[in-house]
Amino acid sequence: MASTWVPGVTGDSPFSLANIPFGIITTQFDPAPRAAIAIGSYALDLKALSDSKDLTKLASSLKGHDSVFSQPTLNAFAALGRPVHREVRKVIQEILSAETSHPDVLKNDKELQEKALIPQGKFKTHLPMSIGDYTDFYAGYHHAYAVGVMFRGPANALQPNYTHLPVGYHGRSSSIVVSGTPIRRPVGQILLDSTAEPKQPSTAPSRRLDIELELGCFIAKPNELGTSISIEDAEEHIFGYVMLNDWSARDIQTWEYVPLGPFNGKNFASTISPWVVLADALEPFRTKGIENKTPLQDYLKESKADTAFDIELEIDLTTSEGDTTTISTTSSKNLMWSFPQMIAHHSLGGCPMRTGDLLGSGTISGTGARERGSLLEMSEGGKKDIMLHGMDVRRFLKDGDTVGIRGVCGKPGERVGFGDCVGRIYSAVQN
Amino acid sequence: MASTWVPGVTGDSPFSLANIPFGIITTQFDPAPRAAIAIGSYALDLKALSDSKDLTKLASSLKGHDSVFSQPTLNAFAALGRPVHREVRKVIQEILSAETSHPDVLKNDKELQEKALIPQGKFKTHLPMSIGDYTDFYAGYHHAYAVGVMFRGPANALQPNYTHLPVGYHGRSSSIVVSGTPIRRPVGQILLDSTAEPKQPSTAPSRRLDIELELGCFIAKPNELGTSISIEDAEEHIFGYVMLNDWSARDIQTWEYVPLGPFNGKNFASTISPWVVLADALEPFRTKGIENKTPLQDYLKESKADTAFDIELEIDLTTSEGDTTTISTTSSKNLMWSFPQMIAHHSLGGCPMRTGDLLGSGTISGTGARERGSLLEMSEGGKKDIMLHGMDVRRFLKDGDTVGIRGVCGKPGERVGFGDCVGRIYSAVQN
Ligand SMILES: [Ca+2]
Ligand SMILES: [Ca+2]
Ligand SMILES: [Mg+2]
Ligand SMILES: [Mg+2]
Ligand code: NI
Repeated sequence: MASTWVPGVTGDSPFSLANIPFGIITTQFDPAPRAAIAIGSYALDLKALSDSKDLTKLASSLKGHDSVFSQPTLNAFAALGRPVHREVRKVIQEILSAETSHPDVLKNDKELQEKALIPQGKFKTHLPMSIGDYTDFYAGYHHAYAVGVMFRGPANALQPNYTHLPVGYHGRSSSIVVSGTPIRRPVGQILLDSTAEPKQPSTAPSRRLDIELELGCFIAKPNELGTSISIEDAEEHIFGYVMLNDWSARDIQTWEYVPLGPFNGKNFASTISPWVVLADALEPFRTKGIENKTPLQDYLKESKADTAFDIELEIDLTTSEGDTTTISTTSSKNLMWSFPQMIAHHSLGGCPMRTGDLLGSGTISGTGARERGSLLEMSEGGKKDIMLHGMDVRRFLKDGDTVGIRGVCGKPGERVGFGDCVGRIYSAVQN
Repeated sequence: MASTWVPGVTGDSPFSLANIPFGIITTQFDPAPRAAIAIGSYALDLKALSDSKDLTKLASSLKGHDSVFSQPTLNAFAALGRPVHREVRKVIQEILSAETSHPDVLKNDKELQEKALIPQGKFKTHLPMSIGDYTDFYAGYHHAYAVGVMFRGPANALQPNYTHLPVGYHGRSSSIVVSGTPIRRPVGQILLDSTAEPKQPSTAPSRRLDIELELGCFIAKPNELGTSISIEDAEEHIFGYVMLNDWSARDIQTWEYVPLGPFNGKNFASTISPWVVLADALEPFRTKGIENKTPLQDYLKESKADTAFDIELEIDLTTSEGDTTTISTTSSKNLMWSFPQMIAHHSLGGCPMRTGDLLGSGTISGTGARERGSLLEMSEGGKKDIMLHGMDVRRFLKDGDTVGIRGVCGKPGERVGFGDCVGRIYSAVQN
């Protein structure tokens, strides 16, 4: 991969020329949300670029559609489909390349650079998509197993359906927020004494506030009600990926979730990273997921083996004193179900996917003690301290804690990463 | 209540002058979706009316907002809040009243009547709201109990949380359709032999396709992430109500729903009636719901006793031969939780409600054999035939069956009803 003429793109930047992730920005001088890509520490304002230069000369598939970059979400761009995303990404890579054959577009146009290439600190990122529906799956095998052991013992850790279908539930799209949004500790019904009979709940701030390290997938191409998406076509329905922290209040969840699933234990906030890494940018990092030995139903059978991605994932916990500890390191290959399988299953009965819908992978955990995607697992159900720098400990989150999750692939200088997916916990308010 | 000058509004019409429900229509001559109200068998086109007459002279709270009636959904109107809905409904009642003191607006303006008063058959109804999120509760006590007995026996029929909080789950907003939309029988994973070990699912059309008779509630006023809606304020956040048939594939649901709740068993379609009955229109029909003897958490305590509505509900099943049987008659008072309680609970942890969000009550059943809101209950878990006219029988739905649910309150000539909530079952397609 060539290098870029954009200044200061360090070898460690998740936004190398090999990436070109898309997002929505505003600036002090133009408060209208619009599309941009990230390169190094800069945002390249695609509205400013396409207002000034005719991008359709370079990306002919954009013809008649270049207003998509002036809109407050990426939905219209996503709806154009993967061939368009592919061409636009290639064209932007070409424009930003040190050896660009089109230096007139941006490299040599200092005036346009002033307007369109916006340094860190001068732009704000926003939710990249208007999210119609959000579905959270449970494809992280080691997480599902570990949590199952805690709740039901090793013999019944996984339900009999687990290896037959990608288990998932409908989440709350209104509660999805972009990295940096403050996270208010939820108040909810909890059982302070879970052994007392009859059960007597209290209404109080959650004492078991947790994180869930997940990969999120945005839908590009919709399907109609009553039709399904075949597993062969599913890749064409994917726009791209974000990091997802599915904040979870374990005590609220435990009391409420039988028999209809998680509700207030989840719907107070889920944080996503602001830049959507296009499906094509992750192609070089394909690998096998976790083997599923159960014979699959036809609609879930994939023709290729490399259906997962090997994204290095990390969780940082920063205390209010400012000490940061990396509490987990794992890989997104720890999934037993692929996103195409999730899409094929989700739409099997005719459920319509819409452009902008978000699918969560489910919590991603490895097998080792420092490879867990939730505090619930790291603390073995809240029974064991997780050691932090400064001799501090956690079992669940304290007010003032900041959690950041990161995902990155590729070699130095050619990194494809997700950037920040961060949230800080603020004290509960009781009305 | 006065009568209307609009012709042919029969005593049995659900859309009397006492109702004035809001919806979205199109016509052959104006295919742009826009707001209307229903009166008798007519739709009154509110865009045509407000284009021709200055409604803000009569409804001053509309000032600066009368473009809300030109929009393709009712969201902008709903967002104006209950005082505006109340005034606009009153003004329309006044204009349509036989003794109107403003005959110039419509009664005596034959030319405008030609344009704005559209007879049945000349307009199409559409989804009335853009639905951001859909939540389905489980507040129908007799349904929850009956289904609980089937799955877990009488001792454990209700989970310990049932009387402490309104149990609910996030549904799929993309699958909500308006009355009349064809319902495709879903294909899904089902266990043909539920006793075999190990469990071996098949992928096949659902054999246990069911209905759920529910009341739906649309949100008007939103709340911010991290804030909650108090039970005293909750009524002010309600726009109005629709009938809801939450079609359910019981065999898909049974295999998939542990541990995260219903998914493909529900997300293939839910049908709502097209006309939103405003919250104010239902006020005269308040009554007590089902008594909950469990001491409630403070945030769920209501100051008034009449927190349910006494809406007469019926389910009609029409076979492909054209025979119609009313298979159930019950009342919406059979709920143990009120919509304000659902809203207070849903937002307790800070989950944002948005204008247009839909809440389902959960299946409404009475205690008698012909008062059940689902075929699952009527057939006692699929074990008993439900007799239909023409000596036909059902346990679950056949292809070609049409189900209509109806809800109505009030005396003849002053009826407040919901109109059609109908769907016909079409054969599954397997890819
Ligand atoms: Ca999750
Ligand atoms: Ca339901
Ligand atoms: Mg969440
Ligand atoms: Mg449904
Ligand atoms: Ni050139």
